[in-house]
Amino acid sequence: MDFKIAVLAGDGIGPEISVQGVDVMSAVCEKFGHKVSYEYAICGADAIDKVGDPFPEATYQVCKDADAVLFSAVGDPKFDNDPTAKVRPEQGLLAMRKKLGLFANIRPVQTFKCLIHKSPLRAELVENADFICIRELTGGMYFGEKYQDNDKAYDTNYYTRPEIERILKVAFEYAMKRRKHLTVVDKANVLASSRLWRQIAQEMAPNYPEVTTDYMFVDNAAMKMIQEPAFFDVMVTENTFGDILTDEGSVISGSMGLLPSASTGESTPVFEPIHGSWPQAKGLNIANPLAQILSVAMLFEYFDCKEEGALIRKAVDASLDENVRTPEIQVADGAKYGTKEVGQWIVDYIKKA
Amino acid sequence: MDFKIAVLAGDGIGPEISVQGVDVMSAVCEKFGHKVSYEYAICGADAIDKVGDPFPEATYQVCKDADAVLFSAVGDPKFDNDPTAKVRPEQGLLAMRKKLGLFANIRPVQTFKCLIHKSPLRAELVENADFICIRELTGGMYFGEKYQDNDKAYDTNYYTRPEIERILKVAFEYAMKRRKHLTVVDKANVLASSRLWRQIAQEMAPNYPEVTTDYMFVDNAAMKMIQEPAFFDVMVTENTFGDILTDEGSVISGSMGLLPSASTGESTPVFEPIHGSWPQAKGLNIANPLAQILSVAMLFEYFDCKEEGALIRKAVDASLDENVRTPEIQVADGAKYGTKEVGQWIVDYIKKA
Ligand SMILES: CC(C)[C@H](C(=O)O)[C@@H](O)C(=O)O
Ligand SMILES: CC(C)[C@H](C(=O)O)[C@@H](O)C(=O)O
Repeated sequence: MDFKIAVLAGDGIGPEISVQGVDVMSAVCEKFGHKVSYEYAICGADAIDKVGDPFPEATYQVCKDADAVLFSAVGDPKFDNDPTAKVRPEQGLLAMRKKLGLFANIRPVQTFKCLIHKSPLRAELVENADFICIRELTGGMYFGEKYQDNDKAYDTNYYTRPEIERILKVAFEYAMKRRKHLTVVDKANVLASSRLWRQIAQEMAPNYPEVTTDYMFVDNAAMKMIQEPAFFDVMVTENTFGDILTDEGSVISGSMGLLPSASTGESTPVFEPIHGSWPQAKGLNIANPLAQILSVAMLFEYFDCKEEGALIRKAVDASLDENVRTPEIQVADGAKYGTKEVGQWIVDYIKKA
Repeated sequence: MDFKIAVLAGDGIGPEISVQGVDVMSAVCEKFGHKVSYEYAICGADAIDKVGDPFPEATYQVCKDADAVLFSAVGDPKFDNDPTAKVRPEQGLLAMRKKLGLFANIRPVQTFKCLIHKSPLRAELVENADFICIRELTGGMYFGEKYQDNDKAYDTNYYTRPEIERILKVAFEYAMKRRKHLTVVDKANVLASSRLWRQIAQEMAPNYPEVTTDYMFVDNAAMKMIQEPAFFDVMVTENTFGDILTDEGSVISGSMGLLPSASTGESTPVFEPIHGSWPQAKGLNIANPLAQILSVAMLFEYFDCKEEGALIRKAVDASLDENVRTPEIQVADGAKYGTKEVGQWIVDYIKKA
């Protein structure tokens, strides 16, 4: 294949981990005989500082023309105290999602054996957890009509049938590729939008007779994820519920710093770590590059390059097994590796493989 | 005092635990020289079966004329498979909240030493957890304008300034009575309604200079509650977020079956266990009456009868210490007590105290 990759490094630790992702991408392409080229573009606080817009038109063009976007992280503390500020890095994220039509956010929740002790949950509950949260990403209250004055405010949780059908299709198809168990999460006992979600899911389910589809209220899902995370295989939900549940899911795994995600839809797909820009660590060479590197694995898998993805996952597992780890996951007496050193180790592993 | 109590036993195990709550109420009143009278009224599936309405007008009148409502649980599996059915037990709950103006749902999240091993979280994380979730209960998407047809649907997350001010006032006042730490949970980086919440909270905070007020996005709160539940003292949020977070909070405590709640507002306050109607256990004398009994403690505390509340809490702690427990929390070699026997033990303890 011939990959044209848009690289959006963003803020904080973004640029450091981005480099590691790119190096792994290059190493794998070389190994498997793929061509790859990179276009770099600005976003987030970096882009606000430079051009006053967290997702400038030029960046959009670079993304649109690419096969995939390798995204790192956005966010800067100078914007944190005023969530009502007119221009904020997060708006760049929302603009990217909307403009690229990234309606499906895919977040695997996976535990790594050697990191299970990092989970806030008791080990026996979490050790078999392995599920995927699929979050609708371009609808609901995030993009519905809004109003605010000094005395009242509202947001509209608006969904249309095609929006719901396309995300449920993604979910059913993921379930088919996995353990064939789909949990549709909603609040159909209260919300009209949820009732439409549930109605459409019930219409579609017979088309996937091998999939066991169940329906769960969001409050129950928030509990079940902690009480019995191994229950889930594929979970799908709307944007706002997904925001809450995907974060809850990632933290129970104990491996938050290692989890990648994919956002796919109408145009170029985006691959990124789920963690943020960790501004305090910027430039210190301590950030864990594994989530970024695993997002490269998801990128390959998206293009059906299974062996390429598998090799990256194998390299990551090997680095963990060999205790080649950044400080936050290093064992007590282990040597602490930097961002670059972990990345380099994985590149070397891939080259030698 | 002279207490006029409306008793709404509802469905499933409701009637069984209701009796225990009433007996404890009576025992405490006798001990402290209060008068008490009870008016019984139907609700939930029981009321649908009898009069076709889960919160009939007659029940509303009984509640309105009472000093407090002692509520048990509603819900029946025959309604579970169709959340879109026209008449459902949960609608009785929503009608009760709206008609009685119960805008503040107060849920203490408390751990019991002897039950910490029941928490899905590692013991060291949860053993110091002791916080209160305050959920707005009569606004937001639950009651905002809704629409649904075959092709689209929406819900409106609508809040007015007075609605937000009155619930924040409750929250600040709870914080003043506790460790003086209030966390306002919202999604102000995305939602207009959240921005109004945050703006009003920021306006009100200077009136409570002793309270440390912080602001947290709901996705972060869902993570923080698992990673460091002891961080929280009082948390306040809007209706839908509160639905999710209060359930998450109760399950991390490991004591879900023991947690009571209060819903207060413009008219008669309601006191109830947070657990549901557990229809499978109906009539088996195995349901734990402690959440219902502790909701009686909250009732007394609401009327500033602190000693009365404290005595109930002491009796509950004693029953746990003496292993007088229902099956689901009994230790391996302990005798299993029934709903009635646990209730009776607590009544006897109160009489002898
Ligand atoms: C930063 C914020 C707007 C964003 C969201 O709510 O979608 C983030 O929390 C996420 O989940 O990607
Ligand atoms: C039954 C349902 C309507 C209700 C709610 O969502 O408020 C319940 O989950 C609760 O939290 O009391």
